[in-house]
Order: sequence, then C-alpha cells, then structure tokens
Amino acid sequence: MVERDNRTNDGDGAGRQTVVSIDAMGGDAGPAAVVAGIAAAMRDRPGLHVLLHGREAELSPLLARTPALAGRVTLCDAPGIVTMSDKPAHVMRHGRETSMWRTIDAVREGRATAAVSCGNTGALMGIAMLRLRRLEGINRPAIASLWPSRNPGGFNVMLDMGADVRADPEDLVQYAVMGAAYAHTGLGIARPRVGLLNVGTEENKGRSELREAGELLAARAATGGFDYVGFVEGLDLPSSRVDVIVTDGFTGNVALKTAEGTARLFADFLREAFGAGVLSRFAALLALNSLRRLRRRIDPRRVNGGVFLGLTGTVVKSHGGADETAIAAAIGLAYRLAAAGLSERIAARVASVRASGQDEPQGRPGADAGKESGFSG
Amino acid sequence: MVERDNRTNDGDGAGRQTVVSIDAMGGDAGPAAVVAGIAAAMRDRPGLHVLLHGREAELSPLLARTPALAGRVTLCDAPGIVTMSDKPAHVMRHGRETSMWRTIDAVREGRATAAVSCGNTGALMGIAMLRLRRLEGINRPAIASLWPSRNPGGFNVMLDMGADVRADPEDLVQYAVMGAAYAHTGLGIARPRVGLLNVGTEENKGRSELREAGELLAARAATGGFDYVGFVEGLDLPSSRVDVIVTDGFTGNVALKTAEGTARLFADFLREAFGAGVLSRFAALLALNSLRRLRRRIDPRRVNGGVFLGLTGTVVKSHGGADETAIAAAIGLAYRLAAAGLSERIAARVASVRASGQDEPQGRPGADAGKESGFSG
Repeated sequence: MVERDNRTNDGDGAGRQTVVSIDAMGGDAGPAAVVAGIAAAMRDRPGLHVLLHGREAELSPLLARTPALAGRVTLCDAPGIVTMSDKPAHVMRHGRETSMWRTIDAVREGRATAAVSCGNTGALMGIAMLRLRRLEGINRPAIASLWPSRNPGGFNVMLDMGADVRADPEDLVQYAVMGAAYAHTGLGIARPRVGLLNVGTEENKGRSELREAGELLAARAATGGFDYVGFVEGLDLPSSRVDVIVTDGFTGNVALKTAEGTARLFADFLREAFGAGVLSRFAALLALNSLRRLRRRIDPRRVNGGVFLGLTGTVVKSHGGADETAIAAAIGLAYRLAAAGLSERIAARVASVRASGQDEPQGRPGADAGKESGFSG
Repeated sequence: MVERDNRTNDGDGAGRQTVVSIDAMGGDAGPAAVVAGIAAAMRDRPGLHVLLHGREAELSPLLARTPALAGRVTLCDAPGIVTMSDKPAHVMRHGRETSMWRTIDAVREGRATAAVSCGNTGALMGIAMLRLRRLEGINRPAIASLWPSRNPGGFNVMLDMGADVRADPEDLVQYAVMGAAYAHTGLGIARPRVGLLNVGTEENKGRSELREAGELLAARAATGGFDYVGFVEGLDLPSSRVDVIVTDGFTGNVALKTAEGTARLFADFLREAFGAGVLSRFAALLALNSLRRLRRRIDPRRVNGGVFLGLTGTVVKSHGGADETAIAAAIGLAYRLAAAGLSERIAARVASVRASGQDEPQGRPGADAGKESGFSG
C-alpha cells in the first residue's frame, strides 16, 4: 500500500480532514458543474478538503466566484483532458498530463484518500489499475453501484457493473467479499447477505460456472464476512432478502442500463398521464409534493457513483452526464468511504478468505480452470 | 412440416377458423382463470376455436358455467399435470399423460396451429422441442418477448429471453432473422430494425463473440429481411431507434426480470406517494383516469406471452402467475401469429439466409468456431 498523508488516515472525527482528489474535466456538464457539486458536497461536510485537477485558466474564475470554497479547495493545474472517445490504451500510454491521471496520482502519492471523476470509464479504470495497483489477491477489480431497494436503508449493492466483461467463479467470490465490505462500510450493514445473479433461484439453473461459484460462495461466506443466500434473479435486485448482488460485468452493465431505461420510460409515461386533460393537471398540482417525493426516490442522480473496488485506493466514477447534484452525491460517497478506510478493510478481508481457502481440504475448486475461457463453462 | 387441419391453414378471413391448443393446468391461478381468459379472448375473435387440455372433471363444470364458449371449445381430457417444480428432463421422459404434452401434441398432429401454456417454462420448451422439432437450419430455438417501447406501435421485440443460457454468433444471427419475422408478422413492421445488445454502442465494446456476431448481422441483414443498426445497450431496450433486440438467453432473462422488478418498485413507490396525506389521496382520486391509463401502459400482463421461435409450430408461454387478462392476451397473440403463418415465414427466411451465407466469398465467418465453447470468445 502507498503511504498516506496523516491528515487523511484518521477518519472523520472532529477537526480531522479527509482529502478527496477530483477531476474537474471530462464530464458532459463541464467544470462549472463539478465546482458547484463540490460546493454542495462541502456544505454539511466540514472535514472535506478537495484537490481539484484541470486547466487552471478555466478553473480559477469558477473558484473565485464561489467564496465558500476558499481555503478548502487546492487547485492543481493539468493541461490535458481525457475525452469520452479516447481509447483507454492510448490514455494509459500518453495521458500523464491529463487531469484524470493527476487525479489518480494524488491518491497514489498519498496526498488524497479517494478520487472522483465524471470522465471516460475505461480510461479511468485503466489509469486507476496502472497507478494504484490491485489489492493483493484480487484478480479483477470491479465497479460496484448502489441499487434502489426495499431494504430499510433504501439501497442494495451490485457488482461488477462493467469493469470487466467476464468473470470466472473465483472472481465472483472476490466480488462478494469486496461488495460485502462496501455494504458494511458504505451502508452500515453488519453482516451483508450476498446473492449470485442467475436466471432462476433453483440450484440447478443457469450456466455451470455459476453453480460452481455458488458452491464456493457457500464455503467462503463465513471468512468473507457475509451470508450467502443463493441465486437471485433480476426481479430480486431491489429485494429486501439480499444486500449485495454479485454478477459479471457484462450482465451487471446490461441490468443497470435496463433498469435506468425502464425508470426513464416509466417517468415519461407518468408525465404524459398527468399532462393529459385539465383534471389530471389539477390533480398533479395537488399531488406536487407526492410526485416530487417519488422523483427523489427514483432519481438516478441520487445513487450516482460507481465505486472501483479491489484497488489500493478508493475511486468513484460519476456518470458522464452527471450534473451538480449527481457530482455532489459522488463526492459525498467518496468522502464517506475514504473516511472509513474501505480499501484497508477489503485488503484485510481478502487476506483472511485466501488464508481459509488454502485450508480447504480439496484445494480451491476451479480457482484457475476457467480463467482463460471466461464464460465457456 | 406436419400436415395441418384444413380449417387452420387459411388465416383469419371471413368464416375461417384458427384452432389454438391450450393447457388449462399448471398456472398459478388455476384452470378457472384459463377458462375466463379464453372467454375474454373469444369476445372479439369470431375465428378462434380452442382445444382445451386438462382434467375433465375440473374443466367440465367451468365450461358449463360459461355458455358463450359452447361449440367453440373442445375439451380434451388429460389426467396429468406438470408442476412448476418438475424437472424438464423428467417431464420429457414421463409426461405423455400431462395436459402440457397433449397441448403440444395437438399442434404436432395438425389439429391446432398454435399452443398456449402458463406452466413450467423449461418443461414446455423441452416438450415443444421434442415433439415439434426445430425448423430446418435452426440451432437453438429462442423465446421472444414484447418490450414496452417509444415506437409508434408501443412495443419492441427482444430475444432470447431464456430458452438457452448461451448463444454463439451464428445463433444470434438466427435470432435476428426469427425476431424480424415475428416483428413483421406480430407487429406489422415492414422491415424491422435489429440491434445487438452489448455494454456500449461503440464497435470496439464488449465480448469478442459479439463483435463477430455484429459483422455477421451486417452481412446477412439484406437476405434476413431486416436492417442492422449495430450495438444497442440496456438503455435502448425501449428505444425507437430499434424494433428487435438480439441477445443470449442468460442476458435476455436477466434484463427482462430486471425491468419487471424496476417497474414493480416504481409502482410501489407511486402507490406510497399517493397514499401519503389527505391532499395526495384527493389528488389520486382526481387523477384516477390518468393513473389507470398509466397502469395499463406499464402492466406486464398486457405484454404477457413469450413466443417460442424456431419450431415447426407456434408456442406461446404465458407467465406462471398470469391472471385472466394476461391469459387472454397470450391467447390473442397465439391466434394472431397462427393466423398469419409465422412458422412458415421464419422457415422461408432462414432458408434464404442460409443460401446467401453459402455464397459468401470467404465462407461463413465463425460459423462453427464458437459452437462448443459458447461465450468463450
């Protein structure tokens, strides 16, 4: 692990600071939305300090216009910008001068505990993996997202949402461990319940590699710090019978975007329903507060922020299309996870699962078998 | 192809009959809901005749109570019932006496053009494949579902929704051909636009087998009777830039159930929003018509009915939890597809794509490479 600035290691106690490194460039809404998001995130987080990376000429006037940020944001000039169309491989070779690279490097160098960017996901993942390295024992880092749910806390954790399009059974076990640590740290769930996404809940369902992963999860749950509840299906993603849903990055990404598309369609239909006819419009007026409450509950911006897990540092990826509210939510999440030491917790948990796995009498079933072939079963 | 009853071969013209074979048993709501669904479906379909399979002792009283069905429903006694927990392999070996088996066999024997069941999907698929056989040239039959969309017709077609958990590039091309024929016949779209589900729309995204399938789809679109629009992602499932979405059965099943789960969560939130406070409840009363209209648009029962494509006969799988409305919708769909000769159209289309594929100068790229390894890329 890299050394950390003392200020950032002590959590979120009185008078202590947690430094978050933020990429001002690369989001669709531009740096003004990022600066506004920082101001919003700082309002009720006195311990938050920000290193802001981007073009000084653009950022200085924005900061000057927001006096509340004075003394709490350190501007770090970076001439280059990673665009959404840049190839990750290209950025990883030639991107040292970009704001994204500098944002990650501040974490590597211990000047910040967490990083936030709205930019190109592939490039961010590539830079993060290159500069922060994987936690020992992690094969594939993963992106975890919060999913609206019927649980008391209002959210479930789901991973991988697209860091890698394939995952073998052993990777899925690591996702479970990381997701459980995230649910523990981020959502305060003492012993998260983990489910494995499949096309049905019966034990004989789905691809053979999922059945194998299910057996591994049952065996490793105790040392992994979670309870394994078995297979879950798409209907269960918002379910209160599970806290963490584990899947490969292809399936997770399709599910995430499918739910987003469904929510948007539903919102459009709702708007049309209440826009049709005088009586409906009057009703909508009367129900304004109810409709606003509903919008808040399903607002994807509130759950904005995929978290890269499995790296020696916490990286929060905000939506490319994120606005001020969404960016503030992502920064708030990064702050919370950094202050609680998420990476350290994951490292400790993975180490104990590895230790217990080596004690398993017949070795680790399927640990390496599927590595090259991914989903070949 | 099996010989068909003359009555069923002539489409839906004046005075002509289309016979649909229906499994009365195996659904959660029981045979009473099936009989009520038949009555609802018959109301505006004078050409519909039904062969109803199940326990005569249970069905006779139900039919006697519904005089409108007299002379239009032929009762076929079957002593056995396939339950939701029965293993498909067991049913395929020992299920000859079940209502599900008899329902399919009526299509095999030409006494009906289409079949409908609310029972065990795996068993229904197994029996259908065993008794009806695949259309020549089809490797994997698929389940297609209608998806609420922003298109003028209100629906997109998506497949495979779970007939098979894996599909290689050549299978995905066949899904495209079958889905396009279904969109043409079922939704009246002259030249359906087909998209391939992936984690992004850029050509370099996703698993290598999807990039290969994309190249095949571009090459075969002309003879397949569709336009290929490239990769689509989860957000695009309700999109108006596509009519047919092609994916493997694992991903399709997860997406379908994720969307259902999201819609249910949204509906719960809406109910809670309008249940909170006197003003909101009064508003809900005023907006009753709007809310009802909304419920109809997102009601999964309206789009109930997965269709098995690629078999020598049309089989419609209704939700296990289907009620009278949902069962009526499934029967209506079976009737429409049967009257229009969907299987014959698919057979013709697949034959011409095969013929054109054999003319491709460098052979059929990847036609057999991935067959054994599935998603191994």
